Amino acid sequence: MKYNFGAGPCILPQEVFKQASEAVLNFNNTGLSILEISHRAPEFEAVVDETLSLIKELLNVPEGYSVLLLQGGASLQFTMVPMNLLGEGQTAAYLDSGAWSSKAIKEAKLFGNVNVVASSKDANYTFVPKDFEIPADAAYFHCTSNNTIFGTELFNFPKTSVPIVSDMSSDILSREINVADFGIIYAGAQKNMGPAGLTLVIVKDELMGKSGRKLPSMLDYKVHADNKSLYNTPAVFSIYASLLNLRWLKAKGGVAAIEKENIEKSNALYAEIDRNPLFKGPCNVEDRSRMNVCFVMENPELEKPFLKFAQERGMVGIKGHRSVGGFRASIYNALPLSSVQALIDTMKEFAENNG
Amino acid sequence: MKYNFGAGPCILPQEVFKQASEAVLNFNNTGLSILEISHRAPEFEAVVDETLSLIKELLNVPEGYSVLLLQGGASLQFTMVPMNLLGEGQTAAYLDSGAWSSKAIKEAKLFGNVNVVASSKDANYTFVPKDFEIPADAAYFHCTSNNTIFGTELFNFPKTSVPIVSDMSSDILSREINVADFGIIYAGAQKNMGPAGLTLVIVKDELMGKSGRKLPSMLDYKVHADNKSLYNTPAVFSIYASLLNLRWLKAKGGVAAIEKENIEKSNALYAEIDRNPLFKGPCNVEDRSRMNVCFVMENPELEKPFLKFAQERGMVGIKGHRSVGGFRASIYNALPLSSVQALIDTMKEFAENNG
Repeated sequence: MKYNFGAGPCILPQEVFKQASEAVLNFNNTGLSILEISHRAPEFEAVVDETLSLIKELLNVPEGYSVLLLQGGASLQFTMVPMNLLGEGQTAAYLDSGAWSSKAIKEAKLFGNVNVVASSKDANYTFVPKDFEIPADAAYFHCTSNNTIFGTELFNFPKTSVPIVSDMSSDILSREINVADFGIIYAGAQKNMGPAGLTLVIVKDELMGKSGRKLPSMLDYKVHADNKSLYNTPAVFSIYASLLNLRWLKAKGGVAAIEKENIEKSNALYAEIDRNPLFKGPCNVEDRSRMNVCFVMENPELEKPFLKFAQERGMVGIKGHRSVGGFRASIYNALPLSSVQALIDTMKEFAENNG
Repeated sequence: MKYNFGAGPCILPQEVFKQASEAVLNFNNTGLSILEISHRAPEFEAVVDETLSLIKELLNVPEGYSVLLLQGGASLQFTMVPMNLLGEGQTAAYLDSGAWSSKAIKEAKLFGNVNVVASSKDANYTFVPKDFEIPADAAYFHCTSNNTIFGTELFNFPKTSVPIVSDMSSDILSREINVADFGIIYAGAQKNMGPAGLTLVIVKDELMGKSGRKLPSMLDYKVHADNKSLYNTPAVFSIYASLLNLRWLKAKGGVAAIEKENIEKSNALYAEIDRNPLFKGPCNVEDRSRMNVCFVMENPELEKPFLKFAQERGMVGIKGHRSVGGFRASIYNALPLSSVQALIDTMKEFAENNG
């Protein structure tokens, strides 16, 4: 038995693996593999249609927004966002709450002025800055909703007249959000949506074409929106596997139901971290991520032995990011409570052995 | 029995489908799906290493070139090539030999001057222009080696001191090429290399950083080369399935062996087109593609009945591109001679019934 706590690409539901595996041999009884299906075939257009419509349903996407299925990951969005939204001489406001925010800031500077309204860098990103002002003339405000590496999550988005752009790569579909509060939401698929190679972008239609810049077709949201994400050959398999996962999420009761489970799972794990004298959480309690639970040991010399102990019990991917150290248990939608319980039991057992 | 003549995404070897399907359940006996493996896991780094080394081996890539595994398809390369190579005020030479060339030209114009050295557009791209001059001061010369839509192929690349950039999406790995003759070779994977969602780029190291332009990280060849294509999360599954396909190609005897088969397959099919009084090929005989065999009917009224007749016999994807009409049989590496023979038999039988 393996418990996959990897930060991404990460665990997906076992039934998704099973259905995806079958489709690689025979997609929808076509007698063809999903890997050899034309992206212009009616059978695949139906996949795209259902994927877009499930995303809209599960996230309650209002009218006036386009849902795009792109490639290149959130990292390419670090560039596409300012290219599309930040006009020459304009300023964008960025919140620096982690490594990914900081990369987004770096890329935006190529296209205009960047005003970093707040940063928790000096505290090694152990909290999410809260008291900051967004200038009313900013082209947009950018934030990372969940910091995969440092284990913090932004639970209250600011109220502002400026369009909010959020990188939700690691918590999209894990909790309810009000899409109407955002100008753009983007996310690499490889956490709660599907396999790597797919990027979700939800963009308010009125923001498209705002920068006045002449854009390369592949980097222009409008081109993809006008072509229903089939401007060129998309990531066919990743889209299909994501559809299987979205169907699973809907059958589970949707985002509200999974959010409840995610709260339960993260509460249980943080409770053990706080209770167990060997462990501690480095992040501000109120900013603790429900997706990526980071923890270290009071005695750093016990970290290697604990890692070995956990690995022997089937725990995979719990080593913390190299820039943080310690441990990180990523407990995305598809990771069951029983796996969290197995990790808690492992922590307890280790503490008993090393008390 | 289905015969998949689709233009891409297209047929891959049955054993690749089988192995890829197994890996979705259990990758390399890790007990984990290839879809949930971290791209930083040693098991996946080994996949990337073997993929890069097989590409270098199969295409005989010399020292001084970097092999990159990117996303976004050839369409994103239409932008990345001029962004990386075409400095402000410089001119690039482009050969307009088909729909994809023409799209590449459109994107390049955003970054500098484009000199279209020759075009076969007025002849609906039924031939590959041959007599043209490449100005010695061009930043590079761009050409499409195979025109998927119109069914022509460029067999003799020009001799020039200018770096040659070639979009080889639909004939990479189908025939021997001398990589040292090129500055950049790029290809969407979804024909002869693997599933959609992966883009191969082979770039001469000395060309990187030549434009003097400040590039977004994700659009900078150097960033990807320096990070061994793991700057951000790559298309994990598409890379793995491509590796399986490259292993298959190597076991078949490599590119030289498959080129022999491709010549045999295309010769057989063109021979039937030329022999059968009902059919004809619209393209210049010497420019006929070995990958995408386009043909029309002498009597256009028979096209619908023939399509139905062929579909009833299991032929998939033989309808010509909407901009050309008629038929197109794509006979990529993984399509066996027996499938070509089945199509030939179908054409013969139809002619007997409609003689």
